[in-house]
Amino acid sequence: MPNSEQGCGSPLELFHRIAAQGELVRGLKARNAAKDEIDLAVKMLLSLKTSYKAATGEDYNMDCPPRDPAPESGEGLAATDADEDFVDPWTVQTSSAKGVDYDKLIVRFGSSKIDKELVNRIERVTGQRPHRFLRRGIFFSHRDMHQILDAYENKKPFYLYTGRGPSSEAMHVGHLIPFIFTKWLQDVFNVPLVIQMTDDEKYLWKDLTLEQAYGYAVENAKDIIACGFDISKTFIFSDLDYMGMSPGFYKNVVKIQKHVTFNQVKGIFGFTDSDCIGKISFPAIQAAPSFSNSFPQIFRDRTDVQCLIPCAIDQDPYFRMTRDVAPRIGYPKPALLHSTFFPALQGAQTKMSASDPNSSIFLTDTAKQIKTKVNKHAFSGGRDTVEEHRQFGGNCDVDVSFMYLTFFLEDDDKLEQIRKDYTSGAMLTGELKQELIEVLQPLIAEHQARRKEVTDEIVKEFMTPRKLFYDFQ
Amino acid sequence: MPNSEQGCGSPLELFHRIAAQGELVRGLKARNAAKDEIDLAVKMLLSLKTSYKAATGEDYNMDCPPRDPAPESGEGLAATDADEDFVDPWTVQTSSAKGVDYDKLIVRFGSSKIDKELVNRIERVTGQRPHRFLRRGIFFSHRDMHQILDAYENKKPFYLYTGRGPSSEAMHVGHLIPFIFTKWLQDVFNVPLVIQMTDDEKYLWKDLTLEQAYGYAVENAKDIIACGFDISKTFIFSDLDYMGMSPGFYKNVVKIQKHVTFNQVKGIFGFTDSDCIGKISFPAIQAAPSFSNSFPQIFRDRTDVQCLIPCAIDQDPYFRMTRDVAPRIGYPKPALLHSTFFPALQGAQTKMSASDPNSSIFLTDTAKQIKTKVNKHAFSGGRDTVEEHRQFGGNCDVDVSFMYLTFFLEDDDKLEQIRKDYTSGAMLTGELKQELIEVLQPLIAEHQARRKEVTDEIVKEFMTPRKLFYDFQ
Repeated sequence: MPNSEQGCGSPLELFHRIAAQGELVRGLKARNAAKDEIDLAVKMLLSLKTSYKAATGEDYNMDCPPRDPAPESGEGLAATDADEDFVDPWTVQTSSAKGVDYDKLIVRFGSSKIDKELVNRIERVTGQRPHRFLRRGIFFSHRDMHQILDAYENKKPFYLYTGRGPSSEAMHVGHLIPFIFTKWLQDVFNVPLVIQMTDDEKYLWKDLTLEQAYGYAVENAKDIIACGFDISKTFIFSDLDYMGMSPGFYKNVVKIQKHVTFNQVKGIFGFTDSDCIGKISFPAIQAAPSFSNSFPQIFRDRTDVQCLIPCAIDQDPYFRMTRDVAPRIGYPKPALLHSTFFPALQGAQTKMSASDPNSSIFLTDTAKQIKTKVNKHAFSGGRDTVEEHRQFGGNCDVDVSFMYLTFFLEDDDKLEQIRKDYTSGAMLTGELKQELIEVLQPLIAEHQARRKEVTDEIVKEFMTPRKLFYDFQ
Repeated sequence: MPNSEQGCGSPLELFHRIAAQGELVRGLKARNAAKDEIDLAVKMLLSLKTSYKAATGEDYNMDCPPRDPAPESGEGLAATDADEDFVDPWTVQTSSAKGVDYDKLIVRFGSSKIDKELVNRIERVTGQRPHRFLRRGIFFSHRDMHQILDAYENKKPFYLYTGRGPSSEAMHVGHLIPFIFTKWLQDVFNVPLVIQMTDDEKYLWKDLTLEQAYGYAVENAKDIIACGFDISKTFIFSDLDYMGMSPGFYKNVVKIQKHVTFNQVKGIFGFTDSDCIGKISFPAIQAAPSFSNSFPQIFRDRTDVQCLIPCAIDQDPYFRMTRDVAPRIGYPKPALLHSTFFPALQGAQTKMSASDPNSSIFLTDTAKQIKTKVNKHAFSGGRDTVEEHRQFGGNCDVDVSFMYLTFFLEDDDKLEQIRKDYTSGAMLTGELKQELIEVLQPLIAEHQARRKEVTDEIVKEFMTPRKLFYDFQ
């Protein structure tokens, strides 16, 4: 899956995309194009207009383009707060130190909030305490999760699908979020899991050779395996490899490609005529694993096993497209669980990049590096002086160390205590950072120890198309 | 490979395509797009303008669209003769009873004429009498054939690649032309051959299920095998099948897809934004077999074995694109041998269609059907009355029976004698048709006999990825 690194969602850019999308819709109607094609284009137009209003505070008006405040300018930040969020598979942009406004995103994407009631139902149905990512709203949005729980209650089979775009060998703790959660889902539901390494996509988007992209896929697979997936229920595959090994995968890719037009991917992903045809057809390759007969070794020719996809919310456009196509090719729509984004050490509104070792904690960092990074680079919600801090307290909403603790500190009471103490000023920034360091150091050390255990043979087995053990009827 | 059945190349349509292509070029330059991208777009623009001049007799002028004479109107035919030819993978259109003007096509496509000197060199190098298709200019155009002959003289390996788009079970004699010639090439050069059945393409372009398209691929393969290919040197593959069986094919498809933009396929194939992303990315799939490492079972990881592609001239756009990409991904450009089109019984300017049983001789026709079709439907260059015919003679240039004889009657002297006698009027139309019937009846009967011999096991073996026997260094 792509990581959000390119593109731009400035108001002016949005203004132009809305104009283009508007023309598109008129063109489609003029040509009496297929209804679903028009519907999808209109849906996209509306969502762009919502983004535009969110970004500018005004309704789109084709006659007056917006002033285009640079998102990084303090003024823009102060003035518009969280209103400038832009999210697609290649761009996640917010000017708020608190990060993206996820409630707005749910409205814009048309997904559903993971509310207390759903979390409770998951607890009821599985008999397990909900994962902290659910308790704390880190997985905050879903599509059709109730269907999945119905299926589970009725002993109907389903499977899990997630993925990773192997853009480099370097993975940071943020990359583990979907996998930590997916492992929990596999444990509590005891279902098969497929993990797609989109090395073909990284080859298409980045300046990599096929060999490099595949090499990264295998290296990243080791870190994924180190999360503790059950080898008897988990299949990890590289697109470059699996396409040439599966009797079912390409057939589904072509089926999807027949039912998606360039107009649609243009609307959903903002592709242009200058993009290579590989990028243009790629969305079908990320969509195909949502359908069970893409894995005949696991599901034989069954097309009715529903799929649940845990992923970061920026991947949703791929699966909106997938859910649009599914009924037209006779397959069930995949269900989704969406996570928030993992903030960079420098703050929720800055981008993490594998090329900047200080932008996050990497899975290869030593205890000493972790300590230094947190102390030197973690954006603080503390006050300028100890005196002020004691008097006014710190701001957990923008403090990256605290945000990281919400991701990785299991103990709810302790987390709450820290929040209270830091907010009141009883806890100083140095002490807060110390708490995080003490959580991250063992976490990373244990990950590194487990990764060492992952031999080439184990990787090979995870990546071999094979029957998985599950008790489907 | 697609067969020319859709689209339209009328002057007005050309006028609009030139306008669009012009905008495209200006857009690319404005954006300082990659040089090769601009060059290709410009090349296409010029070729469209040449077609336009050929079709209208006037230079393109954006301010005055052409009157749009229906190509079938007698007036248009009389007035513009062969000047209205339009050829792309989906459209072959001419208003001349003599058929397309192939010398013009060579200029427009920028290929080279197969002249006497090349035919002589083929004879010298192979020590074999050139096939009648070469002696008679049925294979009339080439790209880099001299390179192939150099390679052969220097004992350097090369291989043959041709294909078929399995749009239905029904194949007519015209469909055999490339295969008859390819079998001859395999015999005289003793090289491996790969035959691509583009069932994925037919699924994308036509109202077929995957299963139907694949079924047609297997049925058509039987007729192809019946042409007598050497099973130890020939691999026939269905895209839908082989993509999921080959460690090399998809990797080359992605490589090609990374190096071709939508602008390029738009220019070359006339795709629009409403086309599905499957059509848009398909050209890479027809291109990939031009590179030897798409077949690791045959060539292992060798990327330097050059490819020679015998095909009808309407397939050239795919391979112009392939030759443009090849050097950029480090592969040799495929060489090509282009054939003329096989005329419909009703005349060279009408279209053959599998849905009209009377438009050609089908491989399933009985002796009686052949006799009736030729006598009833073969367009005649004869005169209205026997007296006129005796006096003025017939016209072989437009007589379909004579055209068919040039394709299938092996004896040059006899063919020349028939031409003389029919032109002088010594031979009557009935007698000419009788000659054709006597050639076609045994030809079809023998084909049917050989096809009966083709068991499912034989098809399975031809279509199994495997080592082929050849003596490459």
